Amino acid sequence: MSQQKNQLIIGLFGFGVVGEGLYRVLQQTPGLQAEIRKVCIKHPGKERNAPGNLFTTDPALLLDDPEINVIVELIDDSEAAFLIAQSALQSGKALVSAGKKMIAAHLPELLALQQQWGTPFLYEAACCASIPVIRNLEEYYDNDLLHALRGIVNGSTNYILTRIAEEGLSFSEALKLAQESGFAESDPALDIEGKDAVFKLSILLAHAYGVLSAPEELVHSGIHRLKEADSVFARERGYCIRLLAQATKLSDGRIAAFVLPAFVDKESSFYPVRDEYNALEIGSGLADRQFFSGKGAGAFPTASAVLSDLSALRYGYRYEYKKLAQTVSEEPALSQDFYLRVYVSFKRLHQIPHQIFTRIDEWNSRPDGCSVSGLIHFSVLSHDWWQHEFVSLIVYPEPIIETVAIEPHVVHPVSAEWVAAGRH
Amino acid sequence: MSQQKNQLIIGLFGFGVVGEGLYRVLQQTPGLQAEIRKVCIKHPGKERNAPGNLFTTDPALLLDDPEINVIVELIDDSEAAFLIAQSALQSGKALVSAGKKMIAAHLPELLALQQQWGTPFLYEAACCASIPVIRNLEEYYDNDLLHALRGIVNGSTNYILTRIAEEGLSFSEALKLAQESGFAESDPALDIEGKDAVFKLSILLAHAYGVLSAPEELVHSGIHRLKEADSVFARERGYCIRLLAQATKLSDGRIAAFVLPAFVDKESSFYPVRDEYNALEIGSGLADRQFFSGKGAGAFPTASAVLSDLSALRYGYRYEYKKLAQTVSEEPALSQDFYLRVYVSFKRLHQIPHQIFTRIDEWNSRPDGCSVSGLIHFSVLSHDWWQHEFVSLIVYPEPIIETVAIEPHVVHPVSAEWVAAGRH
Repeated sequence: MSQQKNQLIIGLFGFGVVGEGLYRVLQQTPGLQAEIRKVCIKHPGKERNAPGNLFTTDPALLLDDPEINVIVELIDDSEAAFLIAQSALQSGKALVSAGKKMIAAHLPELLALQQQWGTPFLYEAACCASIPVIRNLEEYYDNDLLHALRGIVNGSTNYILTRIAEEGLSFSEALKLAQESGFAESDPALDIEGKDAVFKLSILLAHAYGVLSAPEELVHSGIHRLKEADSVFARERGYCIRLLAQATKLSDGRIAAFVLPAFVDKESSFYPVRDEYNALEIGSGLADRQFFSGKGAGAFPTASAVLSDLSALRYGYRYEYKKLAQTVSEEPALSQDFYLRVYVSFKRLHQIPHQIFTRIDEWNSRPDGCSVSGLIHFSVLSHDWWQHEFVSLIVYPEPIIETVAIEPHVVHPVSAEWVAAGRH
Repeated sequence: MSQQKNQLIIGLFGFGVVGEGLYRVLQQTPGLQAEIRKVCIKHPGKERNAPGNLFTTDPALLLDDPEINVIVELIDDSEAAFLIAQSALQSGKALVSAGKKMIAAHLPELLALQQQWGTPFLYEAACCASIPVIRNLEEYYDNDLLHALRGIVNGSTNYILTRIAEEGLSFSEALKLAQESGFAESDPALDIEGKDAVFKLSILLAHAYGVLSAPEELVHSGIHRLKEADSVFARERGYCIRLLAQATKLSDGRIAAFVLPAFVDKESSFYPVRDEYNALEIGSGLADRQFFSGKGAGAFPTASAVLSDLSALRYGYRYEYKKLAQTVSEEPALSQDFYLRVYVSFKRLHQIPHQIFTRIDEWNSRPDGCSVSGLIHFSVLSHDWWQHEFVSLIVYPEPIIETVAIEPHVVHPVSAEWVAAGRH
């Protein structure tokens, strides 16, 4: 086994907080033998904490420099990032990116490019920043060994949920605090509507199960519709609320996957995961239950993940996408055929058709709103009844249920009022 | 960056639970392209779940076979294991081992062998089994970035401590249960006296800080002297007790390191780490606080770590021991010069010299025993006053204290009785 090491000459796109963080970290770690040769930026006028001759606005000075053997892409614009990625991979330069949106939106093309040009592409920073999740999933050589994957993959929403639970803030107060503390963007839609989380789930599904799915096809919601009554309900039952990305292998080999707010009980490893931290739990036949947590956002945690990719490039590491290769024959795909126990809260009884519940365990009707807990078939989430303002949906901690022994549509005794409400 | 892959032809030493687990896992993962060519065992008579022609009692059939390019060592006898390791590395065969005792006891020689013969040696399974800790520490390229390391690194003791806390068992009852459940050896001394944990700390210190230390030089104790009163005290204060291996970088660059029972509060990530699980927290300047937990023992979790090493060998990965290279000039070494806040319980006041406490915060004297909480200078643990039956020492959750502003030997008002007791 020969040792393979490479001096890394880096062309860096983007010099925002992460880009500058990486620059500073690389200066402190000569042991890595990595040098940033050139940085491509959009706005040349800005004052920057680095020598002026490092910067250019011309991408070609990086992409066409034969000495540069690694492109690190850390820009916001996902379409521009994809053009850079294409160009880097085609010119035989290794690529490192933190752009989850770009990767999730273009994974099939990026896979084809890697295969066609034989260039490695690493993106540990795109999922949970400082947590080494993708490399870990790559080590599961067989689909059958990986039962389930659950994670807090968005730091902004976790920060907001923590502040709501611990300080009794309203959603908008907590969001404002998150923005002031630098844990949420000035346009927080990607985070709070669950889009960022579903980009990451889409990437995780490829590495965990060999499932290529467009993020918009995955059932997801964020935390922007959670109400104070939901927090009160959670607290009364001893839960906290977390936005969880989940993927579970069902007994037919297909995958149940979604991003939804979830109740988390005190015994769960996710319970103490507070503020901007991310966490991931991998359930497998071999290692049983592995749990990782760490900062999921921020300049240095993200730079540390980029650093770890650069370190891996030095010994010729690349993702093998083993599950994708396996699935060419076996075709594991997403399933809609399972049940979830959920809590749904809403303003008036008639807003929610009671028929969506396979089983109703509990309901509360108060002047300021109603809530129902019960079992739903996952396929009912493909309709838009729950995508309305004033409707919250939160998943209970119980595992996914594949078959339900009870009679479908068992009507809860108190739901006659609800049935009547539906007739108005 | 060319991709480097190798077909792995394995010679396996040992076919106990882990060895057999690995054999079965490799049969299920053809994607890894790894084949066990020959298994060397000690007792040829035993019935085994594998073809008879796989087995031999002659090590030379593995070590001298030019087609075998990887030796996996999974035997109990650490001195025999070291001879195998020597022979494998000298003959240019990559080596994978789970033998923490062998590695901790022979690390300097094993380093020299790797350097001299250029052969890789991986041992992720030796520390916390399914948690990818060594590879993670290897990614910290600079000493300064790694502030602290704390971990539950022994599954048997954690299982026992969990049963004591949750079911109110006595130590001996919990130990018996652990043995019956397969979580403790029939001779549990290595585990319960903290030896196994200190082997692992010794390995972690090399990868985290470049400190080579003989395990017996590190201050350590186990859980065998903990009394019921200690559990009661912990419960009353809202703590649980865990055996923690700790290493912290002090402001002078030296390292504070020890394995001692510790109080863990409800907010800590270690609090929910129950039974045979292990966990590790890495505090760093970049990623901030990374936390990993997973099964630290058992056939499949250990086999999964071996599998992950085999997978890494395929792309030519090896440990770089970067901190060791750095420390040739800088010489970070272990420090004795810091303070810990501890709880000490004992039978009679006169057993413990009150002078060992720099500060006494609290003391309780009851007919069945006494306990004191206060600050000690770490160097007092090099004396044997605390290494007696009926004396327990437990570290509080407070961080290590480097300098103490108060007057040394401030005498607690109630300690006059204690002073008097010392005169008997």
